[in-house]
Amino acid sequence: MKPQGDWAAEHLRYKFSATSLLEQALTHRSAGSNNNERLEFLGDSVLGLIVSEQLYQARPRADEGSLSRIRASLVKRSTLAEIAAEIQLGDLLRLGSGELKSGGQGNQSILADALEAVLGATFLDGSYQAAKTAILNIYASRLENLPDEESLKDSKTRLQETLQGRGLPPPEYVVSSVSGAAHAREFQVACRVQSMGLETTGQGTSRRLAEQHAAGRALELLTNGEESIS
Amino acid sequence: MKPQGDWAAEHLRYKFSATSLLEQALTHRSAGSNNNERLEFLGDSVLGLIVSEQLYQARPRADEGSLSRIRASLVKRSTLAEIAAEIQLGDLLRLGSGELKSGGQGNQSILADALEAVLGATFLDGSYQAAKTAILNIYASRLENLPDEESLKDSKTRLQETLQGRGLPPPEYVVSSVSGAAHAREFQVACRVQSMGLETTGQGTSRRLAEQHAAGRALELLTNGEESIS
Repeated sequence: MKPQGDWAAEHLRYKFSATSLLEQALTHRSAGSNNNERLEFLGDSVLGLIVSEQLYQARPRADEGSLSRIRASLVKRSTLAEIAAEIQLGDLLRLGSGELKSGGQGNQSILADALEAVLGATFLDGSYQAAKTAILNIYASRLENLPDEESLKDSKTRLQETLQGRGLPPPEYVVSSVSGAAHAREFQVACRVQSMGLETTGQGTSRRLAEQHAAGRALELLTNGEESIS
Repeated sequence: MKPQGDWAAEHLRYKFSATSLLEQALTHRSAGSNNNERLEFLGDSVLGLIVSEQLYQARPRADEGSLSRIRASLVKRSTLAEIAAEIQLGDLLRLGSGELKSGGQGNQSILADALEAVLGATFLDGSYQAAKTAILNIYASRLENLPDEESLKDSKTRLQETLQGRGLPPPEYVVSSVSGAAHAREFQVACRVQSMGLETTGQGTSRRLAEQHAAGRALELLTNGEESIS
């Protein structure tokens, strides 16, 4: 059996009939036209459904907002790249010479895409059930220790809920400056928690991002403050 | 058999074991806490994978960008609401009294969500294959007549490709004004096709949108011009 086949049997618990499909899934576009981009399109949907099904069953009381946030954290590029590294997928990648020289085997985005493509290939060569077995295996520890929902909420939501929990009014956000050309705007926003005499600032390429950063700093101050008191 | 069961057998080609799951899928949140929101979360992923699989097979030469655009057109809210209307899903919806009075049975968003939830219920009560049979049935005409890829590209891409096809340089976009407060910006953009002495303008709440509108108008002028010449 070729090394890819052994690797799939070990990590995906699946034996490919058409190893050409697995080889295609491991081929980056820099290495030729018969690459993994179409398989990645399919694999992204395969992963989405199988993770959704697991979360639906594992969290019977979570609303769809919570389920969506947990799913997003499990299928995001950085999580996929971590898993790809855990199963040594980089060693099997076929890259063009340019990508090889610049260390493409360790490129997060290339690894994440290839992992999705491999899952798409498992689904196509095998079945929904084969892809599910593979995903349950490579995601085992992450599905057993699902992320804390609280940590997945955005900073503005968490700040508002923290203040609400203390019976305080919500923070105010004020744009203090906008600079830069139209295609490279830089927003500066102040977040004011007047009831606590607290003001933080945040920067970002959009108003929303600048607000999130300012809210994140306010949350840090509120939380650290608590720790130093208690 | 209850009316919902008959309806599912006719339109989804599926006989539910647990009709309570089908009833839940038809229950809008206005009618109680045992509603269809979690099933919609699941159904959205079920539909995504099954449509992806069909497109992957039906368009063996399409790149992932084309596949994504076609999929988006097939699973968008308005397409789902059209299909829901075709299979008379509105007649079976359970709505709260407020939604009933305001005509919620015909609300596009409520219909689209309920259709996804029904597909999620078919997957859960049955299997991946059961959901696939249901989707192939309700999407039959749309999968036989896949949308023209050309019509799905955004206006800027189509304009650029049209000019390129005539050996002309790409258009230029220039922001001519930005007005309004930070939370309600209004951009005005000019699209210039110098080689044809053409200039159009577009407005929008972002630079990107304003550019798309300006490009859309330039395309209309180019296309209508051709028709009047030929």
